[in-house]
Amino acid sequence: MRFEETLADRSSWSTAGRCPIEQTMKVVGSRNAMLIMREAFYGTSRFEDFMDRVGMSSATAASHLKALTAAGLLERRRYQEQGERARQDYILTAAGTDLMPVIIGLFEWGIKHGRLRSGVESVHAGCGEPAEVEVRCRAGHPLTSDDVELRVRPTDKDGRR
Amino acid sequence: MRFEETLADRSSWSTAGRCPIEQTMKVVGSRNAMLIMREAFYGTSRFEDFMDRVGMSSATAASHLKALTAAGLLERRRYQEQGERARQDYILTAAGTDLMPVIIGLFEWGIKHGRLRSGVESVHAGCGEPAEVEVRCRAGHPLTSDDVELRVRPTDKDGRR
Repeated sequence: MRFEETLADRSSWSTAGRCPIEQTMKVVGSRNAMLIMREAFYGTSRFEDFMDRVGMSSATAASHLKALTAAGLLERRRYQEQGERARQDYILTAAGTDLMPVIIGLFEWGIKHGRLRSGVESVHAGCGEPAEVEVRCRAGHPLTSDDVELRVRPTDKDGRR
Repeated sequence: MRFEETLADRSSWSTAGRCPIEQTMKVVGSRNAMLIMREAFYGTSRFEDFMDRVGMSSATAASHLKALTAAGLLERRRYQEQGERARQDYILTAAGTDLMPVIIGLFEWGIKHGRLRSGVESVHAGCGEPAEVEVRCRAGHPLTSDDVELRVRPTDKDGRR
């Protein structure tokens, strides 16, 4: 990666606590939180299923589901099956769905570099080719690490960066 | 996401411990490990710089750098500046560089959904457009969550999945 001129001296600036990567890791930066998100993408919605499929205690599941809901990645939905009492389950929000590139990126890295074969793969349902994550710019150019530049964000209409 | 027929009953199978996402999270699934990788992408290579820029104690930095090196994401390199004693620093390996989509994915999510503005953005150095992460299949089709299917991996030449 490169830096624009004003950022070139890496010791002269810091985004400590405000780095976007750090902020995302605060929300999903643990095995349990990320595997709950995996399950939400897999369609899991019930408390007990999250517990069983991620392999967590009830207290751990409750605490992570609460945090992910508070952070806006999941939302609680009321549902009721015939003859049963009303229950709540958890579904992905738009912000949760936006995590897909990270999930697929972690999946792809694990397939390529993980030491244990998982026996599953993720493909495009339409054509059968493997799903991949690509870094591109908004103009469509594929980017390697050397092509990415960190720069100071322009101010918005309220004068904030 | 969808499942191929043999995987449709989510309760009938599990990749516990072998899930590729879980394996990747074992390596970089903590704030400190991921921010060390961020710094490595930013060109940081010295022990003290990792410590200062991530905000870790010396013991924490040593333990994470050792684990990331053992996992093959960083490698130690010997270097010597004129008149100083020989030192070791840490640089990205090919496997470490393969984590770039995850790093940019976390960055992009934080920019969009983080609650604190970081003041920086990542762009294509060549054209200035923002860097983004896209999920596509190898044939180039852009994929939404609904397009991704999980299927049983075909066996390789040794009969392993």
